[in-house]
Amino acid sequence: MPPAIILLSGGLDSATVLAMARAAGHRCHALSVDYRQRHRSELDAARRIAVALGAVEHRVIPLDLRAIGGSALTDDAIAVPESPTSGIPVTYVPARNTLMLSLALAYGEVVGAHDLYIGVNAVDYSGYPDCRPEFITAFQAMARLATKTGVEGAQITVHAPIIGMSKAQIIRTGVALGVDYGMTVSCYQADTEGRACGRCDSCRLRAEGFAAAGEADPTRYV
Amino acid sequence: MPPAIILLSGGLDSATVLAMARAAGHRCHALSVDYRQRHRSELDAARRIAVALGAVEHRVIPLDLRAIGGSALTDDAIAVPESPTSGIPVTYVPARNTLMLSLALAYGEVVGAHDLYIGVNAVDYSGYPDCRPEFITAFQAMARLATKTGVEGAQITVHAPIIGMSKAQIIRTGVALGVDYGMTVSCYQADTEGRACGRCDSCRLRAEGFAAAGEADPTRYV
Repeated sequence: MPPAIILLSGGLDSATVLAMARAAGHRCHALSVDYRQRHRSELDAARRIAVALGAVEHRVIPLDLRAIGGSALTDDAIAVPESPTSGIPVTYVPARNTLMLSLALAYGEVVGAHDLYIGVNAVDYSGYPDCRPEFITAFQAMARLATKTGVEGAQITVHAPIIGMSKAQIIRTGVALGVDYGMTVSCYQADTEGRACGRCDSCRLRAEGFAAAGEADPTRYV
Repeated sequence: MPPAIILLSGGLDSATVLAMARAAGHRCHALSVDYRQRHRSELDAARRIAVALGAVEHRVIPLDLRAIGGSALTDDAIAVPESPTSGIPVTYVPARNTLMLSLALAYGEVVGAHDLYIGVNAVDYSGYPDCRPEFITAFQAMARLATKTGVEGAQITVHAPIIGMSKAQIIRTGVALGVDYGMTVSCYQADTEGRACGRCDSCRLRAEGFAAAGEADPTRYV
């Protein structure tokens, strides 16, 4: 089975992507980034999900984005919005997906993986620029030039298999592949037990997704 | 003065780039990455150089690339070569410049800098894929799609002003701009005092550069 790197946040989307990569026949190396996010219970969730969904390895890389700040998720002085906002929201973390994919690229070089998976979504994407298909395409082009693997002729591929799916489609896909969404944490301000606030953008999208999918919502709320 | 981010390793090349960015009229925010490199005295050098060359700020971001490994610079089990090798050398750090530029991109978004400077060099480039002009161009294209800054219409530019210079040209440029190369550390295995081994690829290129430039070599050797 060819190895692949799967960026695993502990949320609903990336858990689904891990299940999809495994179903596609990959030996899955999960990668989480501890960027000192507010919702740290996500990382605990990621650890459990990696095991439950059969990853062969799970690395958690510390990268303190609070040294950079600039987002409600990495700066305590910026509040997480609890009602819809317009434009790019304050929960946008500068260059986050670029950084995540760069770490996946590095990890892939070391374990010989040419396939990188990321759970970005352009439908319910909350206005993040680095969740768009054109970003993924540009990153892949850059990655092929950036690396020893690429120079030696391997085709590095960035897979974003849920980029065009609605939240309901993602949930139905994951349920069909046996994902236990009760293990996942999506809330931007979950408590230390992983219980969701029910009010942030991420909670709203998730709850609407379960309703639209006709699936019971296993989320634990505060 | 428009702000710029300058990746500053503590070595000869990036010190020259900082001097060039300042001479170009930028307010310079220096960024170093503590990736737990072998040659840690480079970081001490970076701190002194940032002050000496008038950076308005210097941030050191910890990113433990030993969690990924795969290079003589981040894995103690891989020795630094002391004679020339062919192909991409074992001192290549997987996706290093991609990661560095991604951090610069994030920092740039927070301080409003659209200009990112990196001291890569394709002439004496030691065979690193992420020191080539085509990589820089591809990163810039990706960066413009990745970020809030880019989406809002600012043209993010990745400057690699020494990419086509010989080491002698770099040294002459820096000397003309007042860089004190005695402060810089290039050696891949410098000791804790910043003294160079005189044998690794980086030491060889540096010594040849001073000789070719007709400048006295201020490097302190073990």
